[in-house]
Amino acid sequence: MVPQRITVLGAGSWGTTFAKVLADAGRDVTIWARREEIAAEIRDGHHNPAYLPGVTLPARLTATSDPAPALAGAEAVVLAVPSQSLRANLEGWRGLLPPEAILVSLAKGVELGTLKRMSEVITDVTGARDERVVVVSGPNLAREIAAEQPAAAVLACADHERAVAVQRAASTGYFRPYTNTDVIGCEVGGACKNVIALSCGMAAGLGYGANTMATLITRGLAETARLGVKLGADPLTFAGLAGVGDLVATCSSPLSRNRTFGERLGRGDTVAQAQAATGGQVAEGVMSCTSIRELAQAHGVDMPITDAMHRVCHEGVDPRKAGAELLGRQQKHEWS
Amino acid sequence: MVPQRITVLGAGSWGTTFAKVLADAGRDVTIWARREEIAAEIRDGHHNPAYLPGVTLPARLTATSDPAPALAGAEAVVLAVPSQSLRANLEGWRGLLPPEAILVSLAKGVELGTLKRMSEVITDVTGARDERVVVVSGPNLAREIAAEQPAAAVLACADHERAVAVQRAASTGYFRPYTNTDVIGCEVGGACKNVIALSCGMAAGLGYGANTMATLITRGLAETARLGVKLGADPLTFAGLAGVGDLVATCSSPLSRNRTFGERLGRGDTVAQAQAATGGQVAEGVMSCTSIRELAQAHGVDMPITDAMHRVCHEGVDPRKAGAELLGRQQKHEWS
Repeated sequence: MVPQRITVLGAGSWGTTFAKVLADAGRDVTIWARREEIAAEIRDGHHNPAYLPGVTLPARLTATSDPAPALAGAEAVVLAVPSQSLRANLEGWRGLLPPEAILVSLAKGVELGTLKRMSEVITDVTGARDERVVVVSGPNLAREIAAEQPAAAVLACADHERAVAVQRAASTGYFRPYTNTDVIGCEVGGACKNVIALSCGMAAGLGYGANTMATLITRGLAETARLGVKLGADPLTFAGLAGVGDLVATCSSPLSRNRTFGERLGRGDTVAQAQAATGGQVAEGVMSCTSIRELAQAHGVDMPITDAMHRVCHEGVDPRKAGAELLGRQQKHEWS
Repeated sequence: MVPQRITVLGAGSWGTTFAKVLADAGRDVTIWARREEIAAEIRDGHHNPAYLPGVTLPARLTATSDPAPALAGAEAVVLAVPSQSLRANLEGWRGLLPPEAILVSLAKGVELGTLKRMSEVITDVTGARDERVVVVSGPNLAREIAAEQPAAAVLACADHERAVAVQRAASTGYFRPYTNTDVIGCEVGGACKNVIALSCGMAAGLGYGANTMATLITRGLAETARLGVKLGADPLTFAGLAGVGDLVATCSSPLSRNRTFGERLGRGDTVAQAQAATGGQVAEGVMSCTSIRELAQAHGVDMPITDAMHRVCHEGVDPRKAGAELLGRQQKHEWS
């Protein structure tokens, strides 16, 4: 059963882009935006200049700032709000979610305090069974997909049937989702890649080139896989689109907020200065490095890059010193 | 036993850089250059403007264009010539190689015709046992290492002791080699990455962004690992510095010849035009795509990206058509 009536909660760049994909695939899509002026721009002007400048949205895409009519009758609900505000948002929407709707998560992160993955926050707040939650991951820079550049994605769900249902609902000529049942691996990959992208940006800001970036990506993928496997993920996931694919796209694109934020840190900005310079937003990796580090410590997993980023972002350690410490680690055999 | 007297055969950018690393690590290093004027520039001027402009070489590095004195008494010999000319070069040097010298390979590729890896060409021509051959791989763009940016590398040898000997001989503050015993995996990774970099360049030339590049890297790594595992490699190698590390560095850097060559193909150049525009050199991946494709066919391994690059480079297929075919492949589950 392919869901036809789909609601996207959140009108940021990825939420709006995913709504466009669904509409282009023939679904009836409503976006909920927190601010009415953004809802009106999408509904009446068919664009979202604040988050997707220059992109014309499909006419069949509608929008509202009222969650009740947005959610009424939805067969699938796409959650497209920042990871650290997902819980509070969901608590407000809880009574409005249709009881059997598929819940599709676009959020990537680990919740501060609870150390939960986004699908765990969703089942926690809504009481939904694991089988109802589908996680979207992969090398998916929103603006490139909005420009209809071809991209592959991963849809992970404990229930293969629901993953296939969303796959059918979201397949277009330019967007090709693959299914997967490893929700843990996809979510751990998606959360950790923001921290590694922050470190790649920092290295670039310090003047390092492609060798260093490639080394950070390689060792970052290794520490991500160590954590994921400890939490029950399939190691193969980290070799795929939701692992190395998502990581490479985020680390190498100038469109990535985490990478850009890290570059500012590398050039000497404090977190507060970098935040002020990027419109008041803190990059996701700045928050996730703390929750992922705590999760890793709780499970006895060594994550030196994540640890270094936490110390730079939250303990005032100089990026150059943190980088030198990372490079100076004693290792003889690659996997020992 | 750390080799002290080391000869580097070949004065291209990577050979010269590796010689600098060895000299900086305290070894007595002689470079052999085919052209006497390059040998003279290195010996007397301490630089190699043709291949490493702007880099001052260590005074203790010497050079000659005569292989006999270069090789006399060498405890290790570094082979730094292009992969398709390694056999012919080695045949000329065979009588001059000290019988117990460690043979260190910097060449990455699969020989056209014989479909042999570089270490196989070396043992073939010299009669050396596998245990004497050490393969160097990893995210190692020569110019960044020559600028003393920190980099990690992998030294693979069937004999762990010899890998450790070369590791000690080549460790400096900016160059950190790790040892490995998976020679097959390191060589397959090193050869295939040139073809994948060519495809990433082609995608960039066609106007595609980071999502497409990340997808090509991910799927390229998967097809590389399929071939490597079939030939006896350890799958873990492809998740490491000689796999994803080397691949990401080569695919993302504007310094990579394969990437740059692919960009020209994507913008509409023929192989001959791209060759003319890049100083008459054909990128390694243009040759390797043919030998790797034959090797894969001989072992029943599916390598769609390598196959597409062969068809673009050698059968006149339009890059846009090859790209569309790659994207249009029917796949439902990521690993099926």
